[in-house]
Amino acid sequence: MAQMLNAEIIAIGSEMLTPFRTDTNSLWLTDRLNGLGIDVKLKTVVGDDEGRLEEMIRDAMKRSEIIISTGGLGPTEDDITRKIFARVLKKRLILNDSILEKIRARFAKRGVPMPEINSRQALIIEDAQLIENKNGTAPGMLIYHGKCTIALLPGPPREMKPMFEAAVAPALRERAGDLLILRRKLSIFGLTESATDEIAAPIYTKFRNPVTTILFKDGQIELHLTANAKTVDEAEKLLDELAGQLDVALGEYIFSRRDETLEEVVGDKLKLNGYTLATAESCTGGLLAGRITEVPGSSDYFLEGAVTYSNEAKARQLGVPKDLIEVHGAVSEEVAKAMAEGVRRLAGSTFGIGITGIAGPGGGTEEKPVGLVYVALADDEETMIRKFIFPGDRQFIRQLSVNAALDLIRRRL
Amino acid sequence: MAQMLNAEIIAIGSEMLTPFRTDTNSLWLTDRLNGLGIDVKLKTVVGDDEGRLEEMIRDAMKRSEIIISTGGLGPTEDDITRKIFARVLKKRLILNDSILEKIRARFAKRGVPMPEINSRQALIIEDAQLIENKNGTAPGMLIYHGKCTIALLPGPPREMKPMFEAAVAPALRERAGDLLILRRKLSIFGLTESATDEIAAPIYTKFRNPVTTILFKDGQIELHLTANAKTVDEAEKLLDELAGQLDVALGEYIFSRRDETLEEVVGDKLKLNGYTLATAESCTGGLLAGRITEVPGSSDYFLEGAVTYSNEAKARQLGVPKDLIEVHGAVSEEVAKAMAEGVRRLAGSTFGIGITGIAGPGGGTEEKPVGLVYVALADDEETMIRKFIFPGDRQFIRQLSVNAALDLIRRRL
Repeated sequence: MAQMLNAEIIAIGSEMLTPFRTDTNSLWLTDRLNGLGIDVKLKTVVGDDEGRLEEMIRDAMKRSEIIISTGGLGPTEDDITRKIFARVLKKRLILNDSILEKIRARFAKRGVPMPEINSRQALIIEDAQLIENKNGTAPGMLIYHGKCTIALLPGPPREMKPMFEAAVAPALRERAGDLLILRRKLSIFGLTESATDEIAAPIYTKFRNPVTTILFKDGQIELHLTANAKTVDEAEKLLDELAGQLDVALGEYIFSRRDETLEEVVGDKLKLNGYTLATAESCTGGLLAGRITEVPGSSDYFLEGAVTYSNEAKARQLGVPKDLIEVHGAVSEEVAKAMAEGVRRLAGSTFGIGITGIAGPGGGTEEKPVGLVYVALADDEETMIRKFIFPGDRQFIRQLSVNAALDLIRRRL
Repeated sequence: MAQMLNAEIIAIGSEMLTPFRTDTNSLWLTDRLNGLGIDVKLKTVVGDDEGRLEEMIRDAMKRSEIIISTGGLGPTEDDITRKIFARVLKKRLILNDSILEKIRARFAKRGVPMPEINSRQALIIEDAQLIENKNGTAPGMLIYHGKCTIALLPGPPREMKPMFEAAVAPALRERAGDLLILRRKLSIFGLTESATDEIAAPIYTKFRNPVTTILFKDGQIELHLTANAKTVDEAEKLLDELAGQLDVALGEYIFSRRDETLEEVVGDKLKLNGYTLATAESCTGGLLAGRITEVPGSSDYFLEGAVTYSNEAKARQLGVPKDLIEVHGAVSEEVAKAMAEGVRRLAGSTFGIGITGIAGPGGGTEEKPVGLVYVALADDEETMIRKFIFPGDRQFIRQLSVNAALDLIRRRL
């Protein structure tokens, strides 16, 4: 790849050094910076610790061309970003009257007098370019210092993101010049991570641009392709070539090339064909219906669901014969089939899905272990049944079961 | 608080500098280090970049007493942790024959010959203490250098965590001496973040130890209290005093003092009383049943659920009169009540819950806006109904609706 500008991201605030909070701002910023053709080489999280922050900023200015800091612009003593950047840059902090007025007005609008400490947020580093904050009180700053472009942004994402877009991205775009990064995501279901890699690696390792990353996420595999080029067309062409070869090799295991979820892909196909769906769940306890109805407009194709935990409910709600349950057990091919056919008949839907299994941790036997799950899909011609033995804990088994059911109907469509 | 040892955490690997991966190891490590009375002052993420990693390690050794690195111990060229630490420490890398044999044996067990590059994982920094890896090929290392204790651990959490527990924690415990940190979490529902703070801040700001942090997470509020003391008893006493005062002030808004979820609290209370529950959901589409059945053993009290998206299903599955829906609309107090009572009657459960609402983004009107949700709880005496207008997007509205339903039954119990 061609030489790219280097950036580093500094997250400031002691709450980011607790076990409770992770710095998610930097993921979003990395995506945006990469999109501008800028490489992120380092990320740091530093607390309300003047000495360490000062050292971090001094070092950053030596090694990085672009520095983005988030957080530490609040009104309290702990908010040290302004002060320490000013110290390292050897600049004064100047009270900006018009910012002060804006902060006062924000409080007045809410019918509250401005606490005196908030005036600290109107202190601006000398020569810095102001970045307006439409969603909060702390303005941001853009500073040019030697080879460094420095942006100070507030921590809350809903303040930080629009400020980056409005002021920082345009400034960096000018500087980064004519290189850009484009990404594409291939979403895969039905293969393990290593099986995917065995198929995909012989292809993607032939390419140095795009670069390919494999991720395992929520029981699915994602292939992320990242291309670097001078124009969007050129980057798209590079992506098309690699994606095309991966497409041929991975075939129907790829369920999306456009960052859609399984439930969106299924929903689109149902809607397109005017088909409808009803679900009958035991071990997944409503999660399948929950996932399907995450999609806006799902009421067009999702009619109803039954969560039949008890055998009594399986019989009454779905018409599963009680002797069938007695003979084969609630977790069986036969009961999954009867559930799918029952809910389809009652709802009058094109498709019916039935899921029954043992999510654990209790309830497993040697013959029927924890992780055993049957998924059935009924339509007017036939009922397909799949048997799975899933690994992992209760939550993971339930999640994999929902994914398997969605993938079964995706392939049927 | 008393003076604590300082630690910093370095995550190594270019995949951590993409928009897709966040360093979650450091959250777990922070929790464990804090538990040993060690303060985490800095976290860094650095890629497969020799220059930057070398600089980072040099600086870390100057400012920190404890350095924990994760990642970069794999078999490829990109795995630079061993090499760069050895360079900074001015130590040699020595091939350890017994480790090499163990790695070979691991591969043999899987019926695969060891790829030659894996022998790199048997290179050990001179004078380092080995940390055995029972779940992978890369051993860890523990190094004492001047005032610094340095631990090199692999990146995968299932390898890193047991190695930390087995070898790093005991070494640090000895060094950290007689200070420890204890945490307590109060989980709150039914108040906004600022309303919680208005009640809690006058109390917790009087305490310098424990320190209190407020977090807003998944529609709930968490108060984290962190106490620092020489003994567990002393720390517990400090926590008891503050938690006791917060308890009085926040009363029934606190649903857990022991890190339980709302569905666990509700499940415990149902089980204790021998009560049972059935659910009827429209806008939440099965998510409530899904949450309730996340809890192992929920089949003891959860009988069944109905996901009645269509009016047809509301009538047939739950016996909601069609003219009731026509007169009042599917999203109404009357229909929520009929759903709760219907599912309770059919399932023969102690309690029935009904939820109907408009999750959006479409379907809202001036009279019935997006976010309008009715939740009803029926028992043998009465049916309580609550009306909400929730903010946010489809996903958030559905989540808040589920939380509101769980909280309604919690308070009833």
